[in-house]
Amino acid sequence: MNTTIFDFVGDNTGEWKVTSMVTLTGDPIAPVSHIRRILSTIVEPKKGIWTLKGIVSNLRYTEKEEKDKLVAIQEDLGRAKATCAAFIPIRKSDAWWNLAQDERRKIMENQSQHTQIGMNYLPAIARKLFHCRDIGEPFDFLTWFEFAPEDEEAFNELLAQLRRSEEWSYVDREIDIRLKKIE
Amino acid sequence: MNTTIFDFVGDNTGEWKVTSMVTLTGDPIAPVSHIRRILSTIVEPKKGIWTLKGIVSNLRYTEKEEKDKLVAIQEDLGRAKATCAAFIPIRKSDAWWNLAQDERRKIMENQSQHTQIGMNYLPAIARKLFHCRDIGEPFDFLTWFEFAPEDEEAFNELLAQLRRSEEWSYVDREIDIRLKKIE
Repeated sequence: MNTTIFDFVGDNTGEWKVTSMVTLTGDPIAPVSHIRRILSTIVEPKKGIWTLKGIVSNLRYTEKEEKDKLVAIQEDLGRAKATCAAFIPIRKSDAWWNLAQDERRKIMENQSQHTQIGMNYLPAIARKLFHCRDIGEPFDFLTWFEFAPEDEEAFNELLAQLRRSEEWSYVDREIDIRLKKIE
Repeated sequence: MNTTIFDFVGDNTGEWKVTSMVTLTGDPIAPVSHIRRILSTIVEPKKGIWTLKGIVSNLRYTEKEEKDKLVAIQEDLGRAKATCAAFIPIRKSDAWWNLAQDERRKIMENQSQHTQIGMNYLPAIARKLFHCRDIGEPFDFLTWFEFAPEDEEAFNELLAQLRRSEEWSYVDREIDIRLKKIE
């Protein structure tokens, strides 16, 4: 059974209630009051007001030493105390995708310190990345974050650091959706 | 219009006639007499005796200097004189996918010289890589090669070099299908 393909369904009902939806760059998406994240397949039809499909894949940039540190400290989605979430779909520009692997890695790590920034907020902020560029979706990546209410300020700080980085100058569409788990 | 998702349809008719089909590692696939490569979509149903779906993606390992060299010298599929083709679906083991990016790169390039080996046979051997690991397909990659009949020996030499490399010790399924273009 496939366990790597997920649908993020924006709808009028769902496990997570939308508390805010902000378009930071590029076109907005239709407003919804709830989102549910469900195990899916590549051919499963779209549902709700919109469905964004994403795939858990292998690590594309992370090096051995970073990977070992991440695996040792990061926590999974679904912790009881993590009642806050953020769902952030982004797309990067053609200029980004036309770069070679070493150029992208240099921008992400040497200059933007993407992994290091995220690492500073572990294990409080759990994070899961879903890929969707290659399957004809409107975004390149969907990231789902989960954290306890008391860690919301730290989470905002994490995002502010990433958005100031050189890497983020290649982001040409970004929506920031915040959610609360329904009891 | 999407131009990156392709179906490789194994069937009783098609643009390319199968001249041999050899299972090198792992399970075989059903024998077919013809293959056609058609522009498709992620949700397009499977056709023929079997359909393998693959996606043209960004370069995952190639560095700037290598990319510049490749772009300068490589040729596209579809040249009139390139009446021979090879279609080689492969899958790599979990051990490969659990490696970090720098470990995979080190095996591919420092030890196995994957890009350099392919480069030695340009522009005679045209090559296009299609990804399929993340979309629930039975293989990880489909590679389609095209060349003129007089370059077949060089092509076999290229494959022999790759298959001797450390990278290939991670290949756990490989089928080598040779084809002739129907006039």
